[in-house]
Amino acid sequence: MELTIIITILSGILGLAVAAFMAYYVLKQSQGSERIREISAAIKEGALAFLGREYRILAIFVVAVTIILGVVPALGWLVGLAFVFGAICSGLAGFVGMSIAIRANSRTAAAVQKSLNHGLMVSFRSGAVMGMCVVAIGILGLSILYLVFGNNPDFLKIIPGFGFGASSVAIFARVGGGIYTKAADTGADIVGKVEKGIPEDDPRNAAVIADFVGDNVGDVAGMGADLFESYVDSIIATMTLGMIATFSISLDKSLVPDMTTAWFLPLLVAAGGIVASIIGIFLVRVGEKLEMGALLNALRRGTFSASILTAIFAFLAVYFLSADIGIFWAILVGIIAGVLIGESTNFFTSYVYKPTLRIAEASQTGAGTNIVSGFANGLMSTLPPVILIVVAILIAYYFADVYGVAIAGVGMLATLGIQDATDAYGPVADNAGGIVEMSGLPPEIRQRTDALDALGNTTAATGKGFAIGAAGLTALALLLSYALAYSRAAEIELADFLASISLLDPHVIAGLFLGAVLPAVFCAMTLNAVGKTSFSIVNEVRRQFREIPGLMEGTAKPEYARCVDICTRDSIKQMIAPGIITIVSPIVVGLVLGPIALAGFLMGAITTGLILAITFANAGGSWDNAKKWIEAGAYGGKGSDAHKAAVVGDTVGDPMKDTAGPSLNIMIKLTAIIALVLAPVLAGFSGLI
Amino acid sequence: MELTIIITILSGILGLAVAAFMAYYVLKQSQGSERIREISAAIKEGALAFLGREYRILAIFVVAVTIILGVVPALGWLVGLAFVFGAICSGLAGFVGMSIAIRANSRTAAAVQKSLNHGLMVSFRSGAVMGMCVVAIGILGLSILYLVFGNNPDFLKIIPGFGFGASSVAIFARVGGGIYTKAADTGADIVGKVEKGIPEDDPRNAAVIADFVGDNVGDVAGMGADLFESYVDSIIATMTLGMIATFSISLDKSLVPDMTTAWFLPLLVAAGGIVASIIGIFLVRVGEKLEMGALLNALRRGTFSASILTAIFAFLAVYFLSADIGIFWAILVGIIAGVLIGESTNFFTSYVYKPTLRIAEASQTGAGTNIVSGFANGLMSTLPPVILIVVAILIAYYFADVYGVAIAGVGMLATLGIQDATDAYGPVADNAGGIVEMSGLPPEIRQRTDALDALGNTTAATGKGFAIGAAGLTALALLLSYALAYSRAAEIELADFLASISLLDPHVIAGLFLGAVLPAVFCAMTLNAVGKTSFSIVNEVRRQFREIPGLMEGTAKPEYARCVDICTRDSIKQMIAPGIITIVSPIVVGLVLGPIALAGFLMGAITTGLILAITFANAGGSWDNAKKWIEAGAYGGKGSDAHKAAVVGDTVGDPMKDTAGPSLNIMIKLTAIIALVLAPVLAGFSGLI
Repeated sequence: MELTIIITILSGILGLAVAAFMAYYVLKQSQGSERIREISAAIKEGALAFLGREYRILAIFVVAVTIILGVVPALGWLVGLAFVFGAICSGLAGFVGMSIAIRANSRTAAAVQKSLNHGLMVSFRSGAVMGMCVVAIGILGLSILYLVFGNNPDFLKIIPGFGFGASSVAIFARVGGGIYTKAADTGADIVGKVEKGIPEDDPRNAAVIADFVGDNVGDVAGMGADLFESYVDSIIATMTLGMIATFSISLDKSLVPDMTTAWFLPLLVAAGGIVASIIGIFLVRVGEKLEMGALLNALRRGTFSASILTAIFAFLAVYFLSADIGIFWAILVGIIAGVLIGESTNFFTSYVYKPTLRIAEASQTGAGTNIVSGFANGLMSTLPPVILIVVAILIAYYFADVYGVAIAGVGMLATLGIQDATDAYGPVADNAGGIVEMSGLPPEIRQRTDALDALGNTTAATGKGFAIGAAGLTALALLLSYALAYSRAAEIELADFLASISLLDPHVIAGLFLGAVLPAVFCAMTLNAVGKTSFSIVNEVRRQFREIPGLMEGTAKPEYARCVDICTRDSIKQMIAPGIITIVSPIVVGLVLGPIALAGFLMGAITTGLILAITFANAGGSWDNAKKWIEAGAYGGKGSDAHKAAVVGDTVGDPMKDTAGPSLNIMIKLTAIIALVLAPVLAGFSGLI
Repeated sequence: MELTIIITILSGILGLAVAAFMAYYVLKQSQGSERIREISAAIKEGALAFLGREYRILAIFVVAVTIILGVVPALGWLVGLAFVFGAICSGLAGFVGMSIAIRANSRTAAAVQKSLNHGLMVSFRSGAVMGMCVVAIGILGLSILYLVFGNNPDFLKIIPGFGFGASSVAIFARVGGGIYTKAADTGADIVGKVEKGIPEDDPRNAAVIADFVGDNVGDVAGMGADLFESYVDSIIATMTLGMIATFSISLDKSLVPDMTTAWFLPLLVAAGGIVASIIGIFLVRVGEKLEMGALLNALRRGTFSASILTAIFAFLAVYFLSADIGIFWAILVGIIAGVLIGESTNFFTSYVYKPTLRIAEASQTGAGTNIVSGFANGLMSTLPPVILIVVAILIAYYFADVYGVAIAGVGMLATLGIQDATDAYGPVADNAGGIVEMSGLPPEIRQRTDALDALGNTTAATGKGFAIGAAGLTALALLLSYALAYSRAAEIELADFLASISLLDPHVIAGLFLGAVLPAVFCAMTLNAVGKTSFSIVNEVRRQFREIPGLMEGTAKPEYARCVDICTRDSIKQMIAPGIITIVSPIVVGLVLGPIALAGFLMGAITTGLILAITFANAGGSWDNAKKWIEAGAYGGKGSDAHKAAVVGDTVGDPMKDTAGPSLNIMIKLTAIIALVLAPVLAGFSGLI
């Protein structure tokens, strides 16, 4: 069995090597003209300043939580250590991804002057650096944990600590970055596009650099931390379930013969996914045609190939570890469900299909009908993913019990390396487009970056659907792990504990309702935070237009740094409350209402969270693309009344799809992993009331 | 014990007598000028035509379902008969309420010319007719059921049939009426206010009569059916729980000593509520000051007094039937929670408080920020009601087990007579205002109707909060009844069945997810239906302005009847799918995934339904009032950019708060009562997969 840990570590090292190769490729490209380099330097400075301040705040938080974990008798310092390690890995994944993105934007702007394909290569490969780093750091982190603590009797308590660290950093990074990016974007648009009638990314707009910085800190660093935690949490959930299953009499032993298998199966599936993703990444190539279809097909070829290869590697892993073949079916159903959820997202958000076209049509009668139509579309789009998740759960359970449900989530996330690459490339292309606009390059160059950006929007929407589906399965697996860990810690039979969590127990019902309200309150807070910060930005940009003489005429320069400062300060201030509430509420529910209510709480948060996350992501995506469809000439094109209505829809959708929605994914997993960490503390504790 | 049935029937007869007295008062008022009578006649004709067509469609549906219920061996023709009876009672409640409303509008318009107080009296008393009819028909219907079938051994199967009939009619009436009223309203506003710049309710607008008709068929008839089903379902749930509890060994016998008590306690509480509501209604009086505060206090005095009196009567009922005093505490907690939920709604939707003022402030930066701010407010407003419901559940359970949870719902709904009166008066005042505008009466008269209308908006919002809270408790009680009824029918111990519905059973999880997605899909369908129908109205009004010469100049009349026809046809066509899906999905889940998954399904629908219903109702209410605040002069007042942004928010909120949101209340109870009806059919059946 020593071979398996070697394979796992080798796959991680291979991932890092590919990331290094891609980074080398990106960095050796030309940085472009003096003007491009100047803009890029401003973005880099702002992004690093934000991340520095954010990480300093997070460091305080991490130290505080570590101390708490350390002094709680049922947990201890090793759990605290795992927590710190998870937090550092998560921060590292975000930092490395952003470091390359802020260097790739200028190089993409320069490359796209040569050819579309060259631009795609540079931006996509910078995305691949991040994708590979996320999965490599994830698998290496877990392997190191195993090598150091594998023989520790408290190992079952230690692993969730790692996930807790990763999830905590992720929620702050996602919320903080999300507030930053959308507040800057909305603020810049309201004054620039709506009030002053100047184009997007116009250098006269004081918020334009803040907008570019936002793409990097929110859509790259925030997303990196987010996907890192999805990845490791799904593996941790499966490991915990498998390990406890080997002690338990309730689960079928034949599924997971021993603890080593329980440990290595998810890691090997993940390792196979890394290799499959690498192959997929090298398959992404495109010709010179400026066609959405061709670009999309290039990326699809990569992701589909990676999915098929992952399935093959998973089969080999199951065979090699002589685990039950049912486990393979569970992994396969996870992979297929993930791909189909992505396709469903595509259907509801791409302007090739009816739902988005109907929103564009509704824009003819004004912003009100556009909003209602888009929101209805978002609500309707919850149906296919939920049905796919339900079918996946039932099939995975049929073949491999609750272990199957967990490992289906690992299967879904195994191709994260390439999924993340396609996701992270979008903001780089977006930044490159902005740099092209600001440095006054000819319109045909901007057309090329626009094509890359539009593709990024579509892949981002698909990626979001995929992330939400995976979050649902992972959170469920964590919830099941919580039940197993709790019953083991409390020394009661799992079957008895499960029977006590009756859906109709008033404590479970109370937990369900409280859990269901958490995502709503969380979204309200993040949406309001974006509103507040963008209000400050609007006032600052208006002030600069008013007070700086010659700004509108282009003879004076705006003070970009002031908008960057406001965004940094406000978004960091406002990321704290939603993050703290997410962390504190499961603890309060567990201690006050007891471990049964906590299970209900998690389930309530998962179901409502899933519905809201899908609604927000897809409503936002479809508003965005309905606007793009009108801009392409439908219903009077740019500047028409329909276009104005569609711009309103896009403004509404932005904070939903890029701040509130994605943060929900982390929220539902974070509450679940806190429950898992808390399980030993709650043992034998029935709540205060 | 015969005395109790006499008291119950007498309270129903007293309610009808008060309704007759109020109707007599309203009908003897002057009908106003020739012009007023002409407009009122057109509204009456349209409203009756809609109700006629709607009831014909519903008759087909009712016959079909009755046959199905009759031929299913586990149910039978008596269940079918109860279903028909429930459907007729529900239809009757809506019809009677609307009959008086369409006669009270002209009389209110005439009365308000004399004085504000006179106007309030006429409109409020017409609302009281409806409120009293709803509760009187409800209590008499249930009493008749008891007198006829009380000794039938299948009685436990028969009662839910009555609720099923009431709920089915209610969902179609609420959805159909809701689509009608909001499509006509939005359609009229888009062409009239936005495109042509003519005032609201201007006689040149072809959709204006359809808009008035909509107030009656949606906000009066639809709401009547809605509240009727809330009322009877809560009583039925409590009766079923209490009756089965007397057979069961799992529940504490001392709570409900015998079956007669189980039967009569909720009926007596309801009877006490009727008497309390009547006293409260007579306490509603107001001076001549045109102040919102004074008007609101007049209504509050009535509802608060009714709540206190209901508590006293409930105590007497518990004492008189020598039931456990714990039951009284459960009733009391229900009454208090209902009042507090109403207050919380008031806080989140009235422009006296910060949340709505913040939305008005956000309107300064455009429609996008207005929408995001209002939606965030709606999401945030879910917190207090959910916490109140959770606290009420835990306290009621502590004092009186699951029976307490059910009877807390009865307590909350006992004052429905007066709550419904304050609710139903709003559309009458709204109609009267429109008639005043259309018949060219002086502006000071319109100011008086506007004051009455604004008050109606506030009470409507409070009433909605209250209805949602009660729906949550009632649905939960029905779900508990389902579990009891199922375990009894399947001849298994209740405790065993409850233990088998483990929150972590994959079938329960599958049910939960599917249940959670139902409200989202349901809302998407109703929102889209409003969009489609208002699109047709917009095109028709535009066509008339284009094709009828002299219409804009006021020398020709529009063809009102065509808009009325389009609304009638389209809304009836589009009410069918959402209604059928609600009815079919619990049956499919029960038969395919089994009785355990069905319990999960109901819980998923209740939690997500509650969150969406509160969000939609309060976001809609606060958008409406933020607009009113700006119209009162804030941020530039009428015609300013902030006002235009706020109008968009109001347009978005309208279908949410008046179509999708309220229909959700019925939906969650309807799915639960179907499960209860289905329980004997599912007995011993574990699902196909």
